[in-house]
Amino acid sequence: MVIKMETTKFAIPEIIFGRGSIRYAGQCALRHGAKKVFLVSDSGIKVFLVSDSGIEEAGWVQRLMDILKAEGIDWIYYPRVTSNPRDFLVEEGAEFYLKNRADVIMAIGGGSAMDTAKGIAIIASNGGKIRDYEGANRVQRPLPPMVFITTTAGSGSDISQFCIITDVKRAVKMSIITRTLVPNISIVDPLILRTKSEKLIIQSAVDALAHAIESYVSRIASPFTMPQSLKAIDLIFRNLRQAVDSRSLDSLEQLSIASIAASMAFSNAGLGAEHALAHSLGGQFDITHGVVHPILLAAVMRFNLSSCTDRMADIGRVILNKRLGSDMDTALAGITRLEEFFASFNVSLRLSQEVEEVDKQFLEPICRMAVNDACNLTNPRPASWEDFLSICEEVW
Amino acid sequence: MVIKMETTKFAIPEIIFGRGSIRYAGQCALRHGAKKVFLVSDSGIKVFLVSDSGIEEAGWVQRLMDILKAEGIDWIYYPRVTSNPRDFLVEEGAEFYLKNRADVIMAIGGGSAMDTAKGIAIIASNGGKIRDYEGANRVQRPLPPMVFITTTAGSGSDISQFCIITDVKRAVKMSIITRTLVPNISIVDPLILRTKSEKLIIQSAVDALAHAIESYVSRIASPFTMPQSLKAIDLIFRNLRQAVDSRSLDSLEQLSIASIAASMAFSNAGLGAEHALAHSLGGQFDITHGVVHPILLAAVMRFNLSSCTDRMADIGRVILNKRLGSDMDTALAGITRLEEFFASFNVSLRLSQEVEEVDKQFLEPICRMAVNDACNLTNPRPASWEDFLSICEEVW
Repeated sequence: MVIKMETTKFAIPEIIFGRGSIRYAGQCALRHGAKKVFLVSDSGIKVFLVSDSGIEEAGWVQRLMDILKAEGIDWIYYPRVTSNPRDFLVEEGAEFYLKNRADVIMAIGGGSAMDTAKGIAIIASNGGKIRDYEGANRVQRPLPPMVFITTTAGSGSDISQFCIITDVKRAVKMSIITRTLVPNISIVDPLILRTKSEKLIIQSAVDALAHAIESYVSRIASPFTMPQSLKAIDLIFRNLRQAVDSRSLDSLEQLSIASIAASMAFSNAGLGAEHALAHSLGGQFDITHGVVHPILLAAVMRFNLSSCTDRMADIGRVILNKRLGSDMDTALAGITRLEEFFASFNVSLRLSQEVEEVDKQFLEPICRMAVNDACNLTNPRPASWEDFLSICEEVW
Repeated sequence: MVIKMETTKFAIPEIIFGRGSIRYAGQCALRHGAKKVFLVSDSGIKVFLVSDSGIEEAGWVQRLMDILKAEGIDWIYYPRVTSNPRDFLVEEGAEFYLKNRADVIMAIGGGSAMDTAKGIAIIASNGGKIRDYEGANRVQRPLPPMVFITTTAGSGSDISQFCIITDVKRAVKMSIITRTLVPNISIVDPLILRTKSEKLIIQSAVDALAHAIESYVSRIASPFTMPQSLKAIDLIFRNLRQAVDSRSLDSLEQLSIASIAASMAFSNAGLGAEHALAHSLGGQFDITHGVVHPILLAAVMRFNLSSCTDRMADIGRVILNKRLGSDMDTALAGITRLEEFFASFNVSLRLSQEVEEVDKQFLEPICRMAVNDACNLTNPRPASWEDFLSICEEVW
């Protein structure tokens, strides 16, 4: 397929991938001039009782500290990470960073730890409040060097130029998108994935799958992002069941390759209406991405279908491993198969499983907010708040 | 295919791609703090009468200067680039850079201009002579920011961590390979490709094809590089004929996407025996890569076949657009089709067309030198100097 295009940009961090690759963390920090690393992780102190990853308990934070120590690098530890990271903790973290005269920012954890670290990097170098930077390209000054070690295979924050922070007062997840948010180095060590729960394996893979699908049909998808999207979809369909059932390191490794591919794609191609709505719902009800996607994704794909039938057919072909008679048939069969795939795991498939009946009144303001989310800009079909509301009703 | 692997690294520059994207050159330099750009290009002064690209004549250097001027950026122009760039010109350029207190290094041109710029960057920041850095990972100190604008679609120097400089005294092309040689930004503007000659279009595409094939079978190929290699092979086979015949911008654009994909692959996966020998031959006889590859590539593929039959079959499948009965059949048919592909263009297919009979005596020392080329380290099958010599005799 020949794609004619305007100027497109493709930026990713340096990636260090492999079993045991966490051992390079100290050298990576040194390469960026580290004297005192600002180390961000979750689950140190149980803020808000959220501690999904258990990264500290599994010993990875200590392992990382030992690695830094061996390289003669000092560090300061900031463990105040929550899922759906809060604006005020980011601002508090930045103060802590500045007060301690730290340099390289290192995060070990999932999307929440890494997004917290990114938020801290923004405030520490640009000042102000995190909400000042909501939207695309609003961060002006360069950020401190960032070296990230992902412990999930889904959020893609270790690869992407995205940072999602919850504005607590407005109860909304803000999308902050700018090229300088691409970390300097992403270390992906599949050995760390072995300590993940079944639930987290599924949620991370579902997150990567949503990234892959939305980026593939994005208005600004490019020849650099589209093959990455399809590769991620393929790897997730072929490996998630085995990863959940057997925890085999091979299949976990393939899922983390899928997540990297999906992240390269969405970071540079953007996302769509499904993520816009997921951010808005997540901000209001504190539901994580991995939980929302199986509920919304197929419905948003059907909504978009008329605007990108050929690309939805490409997705269908990868999911089904064959093409049917027409693009429309292939696309629709792919979406149906996707729903069956989600149903085969123990996840919520209706919005009413995650949101109380009494809270249904909030759906309208949520949908109005989703329209303005930066992700909605790249959706292949314009989506109004009424469209969002009818999607919510369809999946209720 | 599941690939078990040791730690693998993947580093590429930020890529800005698209028709007219040269207009971002000034902003890119500013983002890296440019006050006085060191601008490297070929064909300004006809050193050694080599002036393949005619980039200056086509007005691109002036266009770039206008862009810098519009952004209020000063520059100093260094036009002393030759094909197969010479060590002493790199060292002279570094002196010129330091004397003029330049900052961002910008190259506009093909592989020679960009490799000259990289060599200057090394010496300007690390001192010494360029031969001190021959081999892998010998450059210690960080380099000045580099923003490159490629005018060919082949060398990949705008994407890669490779720099090839000719040691004039030893008459050898030195491979200098280190992560810091990945430029900060690569601007790829397909409009520039329209000014290329037919010969240069073919040579560049052949260079990219050799990168793609050797990186795919490399010992350190990874899941991040292998899909890029295959994509490049596919795009070159489907677009080179049309690009040569019609000069259509669409097909030239596809070739430059192929070159980027191939470069992402070889920069991170390395190359093999064919490039080792091409460097050694090129250093002795001043033959460019694009001329040597059609002569050597198929012979080296047959030499390697027993060590990587499955991967050669993947290459064959892409070339033929189908699989035959066995991996071996697919691989061999792919190599034969590759030879036919080369033959369909007006290029030399035998070494005797490029090297005088009287110079045959130099083949033994050339082959002895090829064994020590850094590219030979990642070849799937160990190659001795006798192996190289028998390849040279086979293609004589």
